[in-house]
Formats: sequence, structure tokens, C-alpha cells
Amino acid sequence: MKKILLPLLLLFIIQISFSQTKQITGFYEKNVDRQLNLESSFDKNLSRENIGETIKKLSAVPHHISSPGSKANAEYILSLYKKWGWDAQIETFHVLFPTPKTRILEMTSPTSYKTILKEPSLKEDATSGQSGQLPTYNAYSADGDVTGDLVFVNYGLPQDYEVLDKMGIDVRGKIVIAKYGNSWRGTKPKIAQEHGAIGCIIYSDPMDDGYFHGDVYPKGAFKNEYGVQRGSVMDIVIYPGDPLTPGIGATEDSKRLDRLQAPNLLKIPVLPISYHDATPLLEALEGPVAPDNWHGGLPFAYHIGPGKTKVHLKVAFNWDIVPCYDVIAKIQGSKFPDEWVIRGNHQDAWVNGATDPISGQAALLEEAKSIGDLLKTGWKPDRTLVYCAWDGEEPGLLGSTEWLEEHEKELQKKAVVYINTDDYERGFLFVEGSHALEPLMDEISKTVVDPETNVSVFERRKDHDAISAGSADATKKILDEKELKLGAMGSGSDYSSFIQHAGIPALNLGYGGEGGGGEYHSIYDSYYDFTKFKDPGFQYGVALAETAGHAVLRIANADVLPFDFTHLYKTISGYSDELMALLKTTRESTEIENQLINSGDYKVGEDPTKKYNIPVAKSEVPFLDFSPLQNALTQLKKNTDILEAAYQDKIKTNNVSESFNQSLYRAEQQLLTETGLPRRAWYKHTIYAPGFYTGYGVKTMPGIREAIEQRNWKEAQEQIEVYAKAIMRLAEYLNDVAMANK
Amino acid sequence: MKKILLPLLLLFIIQISFSQTKQITGFYEKNVDRQLNLESSFDKNLSRENIGETIKKLSAVPHHISSPGSKANAEYILSLYKKWGWDAQIETFHVLFPTPKTRILEMTSPTSYKTILKEPSLKEDATSGQSGQLPTYNAYSADGDVTGDLVFVNYGLPQDYEVLDKMGIDVRGKIVIAKYGNSWRGTKPKIAQEHGAIGCIIYSDPMDDGYFHGDVYPKGAFKNEYGVQRGSVMDIVIYPGDPLTPGIGATEDSKRLDRLQAPNLLKIPVLPISYHDATPLLEALEGPVAPDNWHGGLPFAYHIGPGKTKVHLKVAFNWDIVPCYDVIAKIQGSKFPDEWVIRGNHQDAWVNGATDPISGQAALLEEAKSIGDLLKTGWKPDRTLVYCAWDGEEPGLLGSTEWLEEHEKELQKKAVVYINTDDYERGFLFVEGSHALEPLMDEISKTVVDPETNVSVFERRKDHDAISAGSADATKKILDEKELKLGAMGSGSDYSSFIQHAGIPALNLGYGGEGGGGEYHSIYDSYYDFTKFKDPGFQYGVALAETAGHAVLRIANADVLPFDFTHLYKTISGYSDELMALLKTTRESTEIENQLINSGDYKVGEDPTKKYNIPVAKSEVPFLDFSPLQNALTQLKKNTDILEAAYQDKIKTNNVSESFNQSLYRAEQQLLTETGLPRRAWYKHTIYAPGFYTGYGVKTMPGIREAIEQRNWKEAQEQIEVYAKAIMRLAEYLNDVAMANK
Repeated sequence: MKKILLPLLLLFIIQISFSQTKQITGFYEKNVDRQLNLESSFDKNLSRENIGETIKKLSAVPHHISSPGSKANAEYILSLYKKWGWDAQIETFHVLFPTPKTRILEMTSPTSYKTILKEPSLKEDATSGQSGQLPTYNAYSADGDVTGDLVFVNYGLPQDYEVLDKMGIDVRGKIVIAKYGNSWRGTKPKIAQEHGAIGCIIYSDPMDDGYFHGDVYPKGAFKNEYGVQRGSVMDIVIYPGDPLTPGIGATEDSKRLDRLQAPNLLKIPVLPISYHDATPLLEALEGPVAPDNWHGGLPFAYHIGPGKTKVHLKVAFNWDIVPCYDVIAKIQGSKFPDEWVIRGNHQDAWVNGATDPISGQAALLEEAKSIGDLLKTGWKPDRTLVYCAWDGEEPGLLGSTEWLEEHEKELQKKAVVYINTDDYERGFLFVEGSHALEPLMDEISKTVVDPETNVSVFERRKDHDAISAGSADATKKILDEKELKLGAMGSGSDYSSFIQHAGIPALNLGYGGEGGGGEYHSIYDSYYDFTKFKDPGFQYGVALAETAGHAVLRIANADVLPFDFTHLYKTISGYSDELMALLKTTRESTEIENQLINSGDYKVGEDPTKKYNIPVAKSEVPFLDFSPLQNALTQLKKNTDILEAAYQDKIKTNNVSESFNQSLYRAEQQLLTETGLPRRAWYKHTIYAPGFYTGYGVKTMPGIREAIEQRNWKEAQEQIEVYAKAIMRLAEYLNDVAMANK
Repeated sequence: MKKILLPLLLLFIIQISFSQTKQITGFYEKNVDRQLNLESSFDKNLSRENIGETIKKLSAVPHHISSPGSKANAEYILSLYKKWGWDAQIETFHVLFPTPKTRILEMTSPTSYKTILKEPSLKEDATSGQSGQLPTYNAYSADGDVTGDLVFVNYGLPQDYEVLDKMGIDVRGKIVIAKYGNSWRGTKPKIAQEHGAIGCIIYSDPMDDGYFHGDVYPKGAFKNEYGVQRGSVMDIVIYPGDPLTPGIGATEDSKRLDRLQAPNLLKIPVLPISYHDATPLLEALEGPVAPDNWHGGLPFAYHIGPGKTKVHLKVAFNWDIVPCYDVIAKIQGSKFPDEWVIRGNHQDAWVNGATDPISGQAALLEEAKSIGDLLKTGWKPDRTLVYCAWDGEEPGLLGSTEWLEEHEKELQKKAVVYINTDDYERGFLFVEGSHALEPLMDEISKTVVDPETNVSVFERRKDHDAISAGSADATKKILDEKELKLGAMGSGSDYSSFIQHAGIPALNLGYGGEGGGGEYHSIYDSYYDFTKFKDPGFQYGVALAETAGHAVLRIANADVLPFDFTHLYKTISGYSDELMALLKTTRESTEIENQLINSGDYKVGEDPTKKYNIPVAKSEVPFLDFSPLQNALTQLKKNTDILEAAYQDKIKTNNVSESFNQSLYRAEQQLLTETGLPRRAWYKHTIYAPGFYTGYGVKTMPGIREAIEQRNWKEAQEQIEVYAKAIMRLAEYLNDVAMANK
């Protein structure tokens, strides 16, 4: 019971305790009260009802990039900012955005079935029958007209093709059908293409996304048989943004690549379908029965094929260059106008997008309104605030990436942080981002009150994790954690270019875990769905606005910017340990696997009545020299300690220079490499990147990690040197900062 | 390639190697060649074709206990033994065996559905439409006529009711529906009854037993929508055998319990159904959605209930006392006629039972025929062979238990070992049993040749385990194992009374893992099914006959009986370590769980929109005094070493007494306790028993283990003393044997 407090009481206690100790990260003791009072005023301006109305308004019609709805939303958002006293404008880019003109998928053998490729409207869901909806498709599929044998490839991941290899099944010249899930959708056709497939179908299996988890829409939140996940299959792990203008802003007259040469676009056609449409295709498959862990939730035995099952897939697109409307709103900082705290959420959706992205956009707008109210009292932030409503996130982070690329040099100079949100629902706080910001977010997470339970959102998340952990050991470990841990950033939302291309410190945060559902990228992501299943009272919209808003206000007004590089050091050091362990376990498993292969155990152990190709023995895993990395980390530890001492001294003596603060927020750029990651130079951050074969999912220290995973030992050793240099560069930089500001 | 040998070459090498070293466990060097030649002759007499014909013959018609088919099979088997020169007879017991006269299950609300309770005949499967089939039912269900709300209880295990408790769902006065699997079927209605349910339905879910694993019968081996698993729900963990005559043979004039007082019979009605019949019931359920890990393979969201869904269950039975025909065939030992090597497999089935049990029975009969052929050459076994075809195994191990109980004193004196088989299919050897016999079975498993791969069956099993292990560590551990490990015996076949009630050393062995299928206890367990999916060439029937036959012949002719109690010591010592670890992990998880409960974390972590009862804190787990057990084990280790030295001396000096051998095979009886296990006195073996809440699944050192699991700390401490005494008794006995035979 100790933890259940009324919000006001909690606030009171926090105020008291801060009044006594006068400490919040980054503030001189004398300025703490003022900041806490500001945040308290900020909170009072936030309204659940407003958030609900904004969600209703912005999700009222389909509003994908280039649609009238998206333009109208941008203009409406612009008008709001202006009304609230912000200096706002729309910045327009011109980006490649394909929409379908032909979509045909039919089974031609052993029987005929023409897929319907259409989500029906539902009487319960008022917006589900609107005109202007984008059809179900995968943006940036190639045009194509292919007919071929169908092969089921599970989730379509590299390890799935290893299983197919063992079974002697080759997808060359064939059309594959893969389940959505377990990776970013774009990796599925990419890997299929690498294996020689001529087409790719992706469907939502009810075990992953449907009745297996609960009642289906509209009775329940989960995907019904007709629901389809739209989505981009641009290869964002090569680079996101406009495919024709990598690295530069897609302005009207930018130099553009020939579309067919764009290195992040597929060569094969792809189409997403519902489980209604997938059923006849999968049921007709012959060939071996799929392994148990490939089986989904449809009521028949899954076979892999190939066999008599042939399908015809034809898709063609309007490859238009369309306008992309970013709304950029500013409030000039009163003390440091050239230090920018940037906050963003996209506004474009696949269809109505009440959850994705409007829920997060509505919380962001509520922050902006509240800040507008503060402005009316005469308050001004110390640093400049930049609030952004991105267009074209769904096709491939277009609006944010182009804006970053267009303003990269200025942003690398001025941007203190980029704070991103996207969709939210009821549930538990998650935060990922630059690890030097970990203590700041820990502090904030312990003061924002969870609306369902009246404990801090830190405590709520921790307790939920503890009771869901599944083992006493795991529970104990969670209970022993006293601080919020930031996740590492992969991709999938608008923070990507800031952190991974430009080295600008970034945060991505949200709430979720209690909304369930299968509305993602379908016509059923609607206001009706949101108010029935996601956050009926919009109370987590307020929690989100508080969380992000406090981060904005605290960074905007900090005396000494709240970067703590000792946390960054600890995180990188942990990743480095993981890499050494990964190499070791790879070595051990290779030895065992080769022993099984060479001894004939595979041949003996398998069922001889089933076709089975014994895998080829793999190259032995060498020992690598990790010492340059270890030495660099030793230096980083030393220098982060030196800097931290300097930092604390400044807080104590109320004496900081602007150049010290600037040095702090620009430090992360030391971790960029000029040449970028191997085979994807756009990604310049050494520590965080989306995985080459996982997509959204992060790979930390990707240059080394992926070289090990892909058994490229030479590159792994080279990357260790690259990483050691980057880390040493940061270490020396931090030492210089400390020395220059003694 | 080193392991792929032609059988003859392998045999040659083995012979050579034995000729050189002249060692097989239990034989004087001078007698080794004779024994190996005998086994070689035995093998030559075995015929795949014979086994196939026997399976066809004995599965030709339904032959459950009390059916004309079962009687005819018993008489046919008797005639075969007589033909082959055995001294055979039928021994008849009189046992309670209920057959259904009424079976009604219908949903009465929210809609009507009358279950069909019938497996259709299939044109492909010639025997599937025969008359004389037992209907689908659970034998020893109570008579009952109940109507109530339906509640889905997952597998119906204790932990499932804990989940229901947390959700605030009570089954008192309700009818539960449970999935087959994850426990013996009889535990499901027993636990339901303990929780106050008034009826129990058990169904085969396609995720456990159906299309989730492959094509359904008759296209594939797996359970089709109409297949039903018959089976007994007698509470065999209290005692097996005739429910009315516990502990004594059920002869015509035995004293019988009143049926309604029999402590191993249920008070509530139970009925098994197909997933076809389960579908409308489950689909109609309301109430909360089942947790993901409760969801099965049917294509809708599983709910738990209760709600508007009501069912009416009415079953009534003919509670007849029926004859139970055990065929007992003997060949008198030439040297030690009062030392019996007993070998058994049941012959009764639920319907045609081509796999269960006829496959194993056919292999056993092939051994008997081959031994008959050896007799014709003038050979006689040193010890008496007793081959048994049990009746009434399916309802509750009736035939074997009654025979054991009727002849218990004589068997405890004479029975050297009981070797059991049951159904088999293509695949991998498994052996469970008395651990003093581990080295014998290890030796045999390394000489029997796997018919599919021509390596030893030991190697085949090991390689299969190695490639299926799922992690490099697990694979390495398997590859490092150089000896066959025996499993511990639970229940579910006819060895139970021998080992667990009478302390007679026992083995249970078979082959399996490549047959797949869902024919178990259905009308589709047919010759057609067997020859299509189980072992089309009957070659594993030969492997099984060789494995069991070599064990029989080696024990029958051993100079010094092949019991190695150092293995028994190691095994018990391992169990003892497990128990100490179990207490520790129980303590740790209780601490963590109580911490979650007392701190309010459960309340905070859960979704407040869902009903959730916070569990009650559990009593703390005390430290127990394991020292008596540890001291007894120390003594056992010492004395097994002393005995092993004496054993080796006898082998070396070719000098053993009959009393030494008798002492060896009677040693296991020292591990019996007079009072039996708590609340189930029939079970007298301290080391092995079926679990009180798992049924077939073994609980080793059950007195202590189940007391810990059930948090009965006082009983756990008492049982430690009981176990220490039993182990000390064995230790002293073994020392006495060694001393008396110096």
C-alpha cells in the first residue's frame, strides 16, 4: 500500500523533498524550485478532453502522404501553433511515393482463387467505409507480373532459409509467402530476393496477429480475417528517407537518382494480404509439413511446398513525386537561441491512423498548447523549442529524414536533443535513446504519475515487468534494478536520421502494453478502435505529454545540460562484453555443429524417410583481438569520470559556460564515422543502428556485431579498430571539454 | 562415416572384440562365446514378416477386455506358445470393467448442440467400420447426470487452477472442459473434482493432437476432427488393478470393496470428445480471454467462461465384473528353475490396437517363437523364462496387477526381473527401469543395430538427441555422454506393480519418435494406420525383439546376475541433490512471490480493467535437515563399492553361489517401505512412483519430493527420515551380501 498515493500528495512530497535537497539533474540549486513550478504549471494546462478531440479531428479522414487529408492536417496543425503563439511554417519536400494502380493475386493451380485484397467497412466503425483510403499494398514493392510455384517460408528470415536448405527446398524462380512478424516487413522480400525468389506475399497469421490473442475486431481488438497490414518495404536499413535523394534534402530541384538504380528499392513485387486471403493458398500447399514452430493459427496442417500450387502476382504503381509537408514550429530561446530542443511526431498515417500516429501527435500538440499557455504568462524557454509534425513517416521516415538532411550542418551545431514519440496506448512507459540521457529520464520517470495506479510510471513499469518475468531469478533481477534503463535505438520512427546519421542525441518514448489489437496499418486504426480499446479516457495521452514535456522543459532550461557520459561508457562497455561473449558462443556452437556434420551424426539422427540435406561444415571461428576496444574503453571510463567531476563542480559553483554546454550536446557526434557502416554508409553512428536482417530491431555496435553474425572475421577485426578509434576520439574529446572548462 | 557399418561387419567386429576381451557383464570369460553365439542364433530366427502377420492377425477385430476378440486373442496366443514348446496356460481374474450404456453431452445454452460422440469409419481403413467397437468414453467415470455452466481449464492441472483463482473464476458447481495432454488423463477429472466441479469433459485439441503437427488421418498420421482418445480415469496413482481388490488377486471369490467406496474411483462424470464436438462448446464460451499459452489450435479466440454457455452431461455404465485372461507361458530353467526372468506385454486394446499394444505384443511373440526354435536345438535357459500376455491393461493395468498381487510372495522370492514392452514405432530406443540394470542395458544398446542407419541403437538415439537438442551446450552434453541412461519409471504400463508394489527389478523399453500420429486409443489405431505410418517394414519390431530378447537371455544365463548397485547409488544421489535444489528454489521463488504480493506490486503491475485476485502470500520455506539422507547415501556408496569388488572377484574367479545371485535380485526390495507412500500405501517403492498430480509421469523419491511440492514441510522432514532408513537398510543389506559371500 505504501506506493499508492494520490497524485497531489505525491507532487507535494516530491516538491518537499526537492525543496529540501534542491537537486534535479542539470540545475543549480537556486533554480530548482522555479523549474518544478514551471513543470507543475505545464501539467495543469494538459487536458484529456483536448487530446481526445485532437485524435478525433486528426483521424477523421484518411491522411497518408500526398492525400488531401494529410495536407489538411498539416494546415490545421500549423493554424494551431500560430494560435498558440508559436512561430510556425510548413516546409515542403518532394519525395517518391508509389501508390498502386494494379494489384492482382490469384491462385491458378491446383484450383482457382482470386484474392479480394480489400478490408470491408464495418457498421460499428464510422470511418471504415470512407473514400480516399489507400488500398492494401506494400509501398516500394517493385512493379511486377510473375507466376510461379508457391513456397511457405515461415517469417522469411535468414534462419528460415537455413531450414529450407536442410530440407532441400530452393525458392529460386518461385513466389514465397511469409508471415508478418519477428522482423521488419521489408527484410522479408529483401531476403527472398537475395535467395532468388521472384515475388513475395506477406500475410498476417492469426497466431501472431488475430484470434489467437483475443476476440477480433470489432468485437475485440485483434485482427479479423480481412485485416491487412499495409506498410513500406523500402530497405530503410540501407538508408531511410526519399529513395532518390540519399544524404541530401529532397527539395524541388535536388539531384535525384534514377528510381531503378536506387539501392534501397526492391527488384521483386510484394503484396500484403489478410489471413482470409492467405487461407486457400496455404491450404493448397503440398510438399513437406512445416516444422511445428513454423505452424500458425489456421486450422490445417501447414505445408511448405512447392507442389502443384501456382500463384500469379501482378502489381504496378504510380511512381509519383509528391509533396511532403513538415510543420515546423518554434519558440525562440531567451538565453540560448542557437541551442534547439527538438520534439517531433509524425502526422501522416496509412489510413485514418487514430493510434498510429495521431495518438502521439495529439499528446505532442497538447504539450505545445500548454507551452503556449505558459508563453501567455510571460515565460520564455532558455533554449529554442522546435516542435515538428512530420509527413511521410509511414513510407520511410521521409519528412524527418529530408528535413534532417536539408539542415544537417545547422542541426549538428544547434540541436541539443531530438525527442520523438509515435503512437501510444494504455500501459507502461518505454524509453530508448542516447545513454548519456539515462539519468534525466530516470528522474522524470519517477515523478510522472501513472494514471491507472497513482504510482510513478517508473514503478508501474517495474512492477509490471516483475510480475511478468516468468522466473524467480528474472523477477529478482528486475526488483533489484533501481534505475530506469534506456533501450537502444533501432529504427521505425522519426528519430533515426537524427541519431544515426547526424549523431544528435535522441530519445524515443511512449506508453503501451495494455491496448492489444491488430489495427496496425489497417482501415480499422480508427477513432472508434482507439476509444474502445487503446485509451478510452485519453489519460495516457496526458502521461505521455507530461513525460515528453518535462524532458523538453528540463533540457530547455537546464543550467548544465543533463548529459552523463558515465552511463554511456557503462552501456558501451556492456555491449563490448556481449560481443566478446557472442564470438565465444559462436565459436563453441560452430565446433559442435561441425562435429555433428563431420561425424555423420546428422545423417544418423534424422528420419531417413524424409528428405534431408546435411549442412556444410562452417569455417572455424578465430580468436579476434579485442584489445584496442578494451584499451579505448579504459580511457573512456577515465575521461568520463574526469568530465563528471567537472560537471558536478559546475553545478555546485553555479558557474557554467555556454561552450561547455555546447560541447556536451555535440559529444555524441564523436561516435560517428566518416565512412559509415559497411555497405550502408548513410548510417554513421557506431553504437546504434537497425539490424541489416532485422530491420526495426536494433543492433548495438553493428559494425562488429553484424560482421561476427555474418561470419566475416576480417571485417570484424577491422571494425574493432574502427570502433576503438571512435571511442578513443570521444574519450579525448570529453577530456578536452573537462580541461578547457576547468 | 566411421559409424556406418554393415550389420554383419558390425557383428563380426563385436564378436572379435568380445573374443579378444571376453567380457560381457555377468558372464565368466569362458562362457562369453557361448552366450554371444546363442544371441546370434536367437536373432537369426526373428522375422519381420512374422511380426507383420502377427500384428495383422491380433488387430483384426476389436479386442478390449471382456470382448470376444480379446478372449480369442488370448486363446490364439496360448496356442502359439504351446506350438512353440512352452508350458502355457491362461490364468483368469475377475475384475470390475464398466462399459457405457448412456452417453449424452449437449450444449443447452446459448444455442443447442448435441455432440455426435462417434468416430466415422473410413473407406481407406478396413477395420474402422467393424462392429464390436467400444464407444468413445472414459472408463471408471462415475455415473452422472449433470447440467451446469461450462468453464475451460486448459490442461486441468493444479497450476491452471491457480491461474483461474487469480482471475477470480471458481469451478464449484460447474462442468469443466480440459485439453488432453501434459498429464495423465485421470488427473484432470480428479483435480476438477477436488475443486468442486460436477463434471469433466476432456477433448483432443488440434494443437496438441491434430493438424498442428501434420496432415490428419487418413491422409496423414495425425488426429482428424472426429478422432477421440478413449482411456481410463481410474486413479491409478492411488493403486492400479481391479478397483475392488486392492493388494490382493481378483479371483472369483476374493473379498471385494463396495464400488462406491473404492478410493481410486471418481465421484463425477467424465467424457472424452473430439475437437469437432469441442468446437461449438468452446466457441460459445464467454468470460475472459484465455492466456496465450492456454490457446489451442482451433480458429477462434479461446475464452474461459463461465457465461451463458451451459452443458448437459449424462453418462451411465454397466458396472460388470468381467473375466480377465492373462496368458502365462513358461520354460523351466535348467539350472535355477526358481529364478524367473519375466517378460510381458498386454494384448487387450481399446479397439483394434494395432499399435497399442499389438506392435509390442508381436515383437514379444517373435522372441518367444525364436526361443522355441532354440529349444528345438536342445538348448535350455539356465533360469526359468516366464512370458506373459496381459489382459485389461487399458482400463488400469488389471491383468498384470492382479497376477502380481495374487503371486506376490512367490514373485518376491523368484522374480529376477520383469521386462515390459508396450506399443512401438520407428525411431529411437528408450529404456527406463531399475538403475542397477543400467550397465546391462548400456551394453545391449551398443550391440543392437538400428535398422534404418546400421549404427547401434545407442548411437542412433544419441545422435538424434544431439541434433535435436536446441542449444550447443545441450548438444555438447549429449555428445559427452558415453553410457546409456535409464529413465525412472512412472506408470502407464504393466511394469508398475512389479517394481512399485513388490520391489521386483524391472525394465520398460521400446522404440519410437518417427511414427507421429493421433491414433492413440481411437478406432484408427489399425493395421492400415500401422503399416502406413508406424513401421511399414516391421523392422523396428525385430530391433525391439532383439533388445528385449538379449536382455532376457543375458539375465537368464548370467553366471553372476548383472546388477550394478553403484549405478543405483549414483542415481539416488542425483535425485537427492535435486531435492535439495528443489527446496532451495522453492524457498527463493516463495520469497520473491511474497515480496511481489506484500509490496503491492501485483496490484500495480496488472491491468486494472481486468479482474484480478491478488494471490495470498505463501508460508515461508524452512530449511530441512537432509543430513540423515546424506549420511545414508555415504554409507550406500561405501557398501556398493564393497559389493562391486566382491562381484568382480566372483567373475574373475568363476565362483558364485546361488544365494549371492538371489541376494542381488532381491536387493531392490530393501527400498520398499512397509507403510507405503503417504496417502497411497499400495505404492511401496521409495525411489520411483507416478506423480500424484502428473499420473504417468514419474516422481523420483516421491515421499520427499511431493511433500516439498505440496509445501508440507513436516511431512517432508518425516519422509527424509523414512528414506534415510530405507537407503541405510539397502546399504547394510548389500554389505551383508558382500560379507556373506567373501
